[in-house]
Amino acid sequence: MKIAIAQINPTVGNLTGNSNLILEAAQKAASAGANLLITPELCLLGYPPRDLLSVPSFIAAAGEKLHQLAQDLPPDLATIVGTATPNTNAVKQGGKALFNSGVLLEGGKVKQIFHKRLLPTYDVFDEDRYFEPGETSGYFNIGELKIGVTICEDLWNNEEFWGKRSYAGDPIADLVKLGVDLVVNLSASPYCASKRQVRSAMLQNSAQRCALPIVYANQVGGNDDIIFDGSSFAINRNAQLIRVLASFKTDFAIVKYDETKGDLMGDSLHNESAIQDAPLSFDPPEGDAEIWEALVLGVQDYVRKCGFYRVVLGLSGGIDSALVAAIASCAIGPQNVLGVLMPSPYSSDHSVNDALELAKNLGIAIEMLPIGDLMKGFDRALADLFIDTTFGIAEENLQSRIRGNLLMAISNKFGHLLLSTGNKSEMAVGYCTLYGDMNGGLSVISDVPKTRVYSLCNWLNSGGSALKLPANGEIIPRNIISKAPSAELKPGQIDQDSLPPYDILDDILRRLIEEHESIAQIVAAGHDEAVVKRTVQLVMRAEFKRRQAAPGLKISDRAFGTGWRMPIAKAAFY
Amino acid sequence: MKIAIAQINPTVGNLTGNSNLILEAAQKAASAGANLLITPELCLLGYPPRDLLSVPSFIAAAGEKLHQLAQDLPPDLATIVGTATPNTNAVKQGGKALFNSGVLLEGGKVKQIFHKRLLPTYDVFDEDRYFEPGETSGYFNIGELKIGVTICEDLWNNEEFWGKRSYAGDPIADLVKLGVDLVVNLSASPYCASKRQVRSAMLQNSAQRCALPIVYANQVGGNDDIIFDGSSFAINRNAQLIRVLASFKTDFAIVKYDETKGDLMGDSLHNESAIQDAPLSFDPPEGDAEIWEALVLGVQDYVRKCGFYRVVLGLSGGIDSALVAAIASCAIGPQNVLGVLMPSPYSSDHSVNDALELAKNLGIAIEMLPIGDLMKGFDRALADLFIDTTFGIAEENLQSRIRGNLLMAISNKFGHLLLSTGNKSEMAVGYCTLYGDMNGGLSVISDVPKTRVYSLCNWLNSGGSALKLPANGEIIPRNIISKAPSAELKPGQIDQDSLPPYDILDDILRRLIEEHESIAQIVAAGHDEAVVKRTVQLVMRAEFKRRQAAPGLKISDRAFGTGWRMPIAKAAFY
Repeated sequence: MKIAIAQINPTVGNLTGNSNLILEAAQKAASAGANLLITPELCLLGYPPRDLLSVPSFIAAAGEKLHQLAQDLPPDLATIVGTATPNTNAVKQGGKALFNSGVLLEGGKVKQIFHKRLLPTYDVFDEDRYFEPGETSGYFNIGELKIGVTICEDLWNNEEFWGKRSYAGDPIADLVKLGVDLVVNLSASPYCASKRQVRSAMLQNSAQRCALPIVYANQVGGNDDIIFDGSSFAINRNAQLIRVLASFKTDFAIVKYDETKGDLMGDSLHNESAIQDAPLSFDPPEGDAEIWEALVLGVQDYVRKCGFYRVVLGLSGGIDSALVAAIASCAIGPQNVLGVLMPSPYSSDHSVNDALELAKNLGIAIEMLPIGDLMKGFDRALADLFIDTTFGIAEENLQSRIRGNLLMAISNKFGHLLLSTGNKSEMAVGYCTLYGDMNGGLSVISDVPKTRVYSLCNWLNSGGSALKLPANGEIIPRNIISKAPSAELKPGQIDQDSLPPYDILDDILRRLIEEHESIAQIVAAGHDEAVVKRTVQLVMRAEFKRRQAAPGLKISDRAFGTGWRMPIAKAAFY
Repeated sequence: MKIAIAQINPTVGNLTGNSNLILEAAQKAASAGANLLITPELCLLGYPPRDLLSVPSFIAAAGEKLHQLAQDLPPDLATIVGTATPNTNAVKQGGKALFNSGVLLEGGKVKQIFHKRLLPTYDVFDEDRYFEPGETSGYFNIGELKIGVTICEDLWNNEEFWGKRSYAGDPIADLVKLGVDLVVNLSASPYCASKRQVRSAMLQNSAQRCALPIVYANQVGGNDDIIFDGSSFAINRNAQLIRVLASFKTDFAIVKYDETKGDLMGDSLHNESAIQDAPLSFDPPEGDAEIWEALVLGVQDYVRKCGFYRVVLGLSGGIDSALVAAIASCAIGPQNVLGVLMPSPYSSDHSVNDALELAKNLGIAIEMLPIGDLMKGFDRALADLFIDTTFGIAEENLQSRIRGNLLMAISNKFGHLLLSTGNKSEMAVGYCTLYGDMNGGLSVISDVPKTRVYSLCNWLNSGGSALKLPANGEIIPRNIISKAPSAELKPGQIDQDSLPPYDILDDILRRLIEEHESIAQIVAAGHDEAVVKRTVQLVMRAEFKRRQAAPGLKISDRAFGTGWRMPIAKAAFY
């Protein structure tokens, strides 16, 4: 038996487009003689549909589209489609109005429906907001074969792997009791750095314990702040990865189930000995390459799915905007990227030269709009009101906001999407200007700590990306990497006047934000107490800025975005 | 037996401050001879604590504070404190790490703990993100009396009242089976218009059906976008309201349980005959007065809890900024409100005069900062780039953004909180400028439709509020109310050039947003199909603006804010 995996890139709300992606994969599967096609979780709707799930006419339209799809699919191909289905018992028995379902379509009809049982509510997930959990796990037959169906989180309650239970129920254990031969999983598992390895290791553990092969179909693509990496795979009953699909790309694969051996095999592209000898791995490798591809996909899909074709961003001559310009160039082509230089009297000459060199290296167009006169204009407008006050945050922020206005004027005039270039370290401590450099439709690196920004730029210069290295061998001019980071909002200013060195700051922030460590724990790890306390205070105070930030591409376990829900008006409890 | 209700206004995260509020109420209760004190849901932490619940050191500190509180409370007063308690079984059995609990403190100790069973996940609620539902309902004894404990949503699964079940379990039915004499409820029930009547009617229905008296203690106060109105009450077993606490104010009350009659009685302030003859009602009455008080409290608490003392806002001469200036004057005193007039060459003379008259009526300070020169400055800066283009959205938005910059400069320089003045109708269709008039720490009327803005201003002028009416009898100058609404961003512009008349727009928006009606349903209600389609399209497209909006005070069933979770990058499914 042949099982096809459709690693597709749906768009939220685009029922017709998503349905067509499923149809295309189905036609490919049928041509290759596959018996079964697995699609990602909720892929008919696009994940995450969020409050579109509360719109009755959307749910009704999705129901109609599903039945149309059943009729349009190749009749002999069993296809499991991820979508939301109504919980008709909700009114009488209580519970949410919908299920998160895998619907088995075959012969023009809905044959069977399976409901997701474990509904995540942590991080970016709100599934209890919309869905009633399924009560039992089930399977369907293809010939003699019993195929158990699970949806994403259903396979994540692996007590042995995590050292703790997250839910009372355990669908895979129930499927073992039902005597299934194979488990398929429809997923929309968001990307974060190294998540691919965690997923496969966890499911290899499950496959081993349960002696069950697993076919895992994940969504790919960017949707607002959340990136799905794809990286679907198949594991045999000996817990070997026998097939790994591309990361950060639409992909399609077929695996074979050998009824005699009672196990999954690689497809024709991989012979068995190759599987045994060289364990498969994900491409690109972990680290900078992986994060780079994630960010490129995130920009590409946000631009495309929002209906834009070109982007604009401010080029300060600093490393953050340099990295974002490079990502954008790779995502939508340098010909679609406009860099705007907006030097002030506090800008150093090298800032302008560095930015110009970067633009040349990338092949992007630039505009130069000096802001000195506008600064004077605001000074004059505010002169009476600000009399006898000293230059400070108000004047520094004004420069950033003048730039923000110019960029938005260009965005509005020419229809370019404005990209915001702040990094995670800045967003954490509020070292950024609301309505200034925070302006933009998408915040490209707001989940990338400053230390990782450096590492990505060095990796770029080593030729790691698809971007063509210029003759001098450097995409990001060396001076941009080597100079002391500065907002250049007053003479001689550098970031380290206000902040601890970034390697220290980033370690404190990681412990605080991702590891939930207390001040005492962070100090115990070797950090200066005063620095830690000051950092925690800055993070707490900057919540009002983050609340109004553009969506930022999530690449970490805990990004400031959908999965970060902190009150603004609060007292420090530290 | 006497039962005290502590309708307090906690601050999220302020464990010491909240603990002190509970202690103060407890001392008052003890002095009055009360046997039992009921506090609001999670009031030791402040509601909603949101992701502070994921911070282990916060939970640990709350645990310590609870034990301290037990020792500090009057020893003979039984006190039920709302707080989060650890779910120690979570690691082994699966489930969330915390319970949402009512903890009975007495004699210096924790005597009993009751867990919330029904966890809301709709609208602004995310309780499944943090809490494990309690499995059973329970009671405690005071003498012979059995007092059943419920927490907020536990009493909302009233199938008879709503015509549908929302949850499988029904705590009050279980308490009836346990034979309790009385039910208490710890609540943090967010305000929306007319919610007070819904709450009391629903619980009167429950009291009647179950023949059980109910004491309902609700939190009061603003916390970011969510306002809690208080409006706590007590209902006797005949479903009569026997005590109603103040709305939008901290309050305290004592009700008596008469063991002989087996029912609740009013306290000394209300004799029985008064209760029988004149049903109690909430103060202020429904409608403009109620919404006004809610907005005043929301501003007051956001300013205070964020550590500000003064506010600044732009005064355009239009009705929205006029209303916000009036709300702010009432909330924190006119002496703490600064209005900034920023006329452009497109501003009409009457705009400036209307704004000046308003400021005079309210007694607030003003500054005048004309923006004509700054507009010319931006025109010059962008002249080469914008050559051969026509005046449009880019130029209109620039005016709004210049004003936004000036206001933020004043905010930064003097430490005033900037209030944003856009209404819900504008926020819905995107008739507002991101990084311009949307700037601000709090969006005061972003959940108030334009038609309600008019109604509130007329009510103000009728002398409804605590604001002193000026000699001419009008707080909001008549011309501000009577002139055609205009953004004044180009000559002769009025809102109705771009939008349908506000009475039509607001009805379409209410149907779409609050009632989840489809285009077909809205058209069937008598609206023009083209207008409806255009409106729906505008609402969907404006999501990127709303995502970056300041928190906006929620006064409706469905506000753009915590309870509105729409994707940005999406395809129209209509």
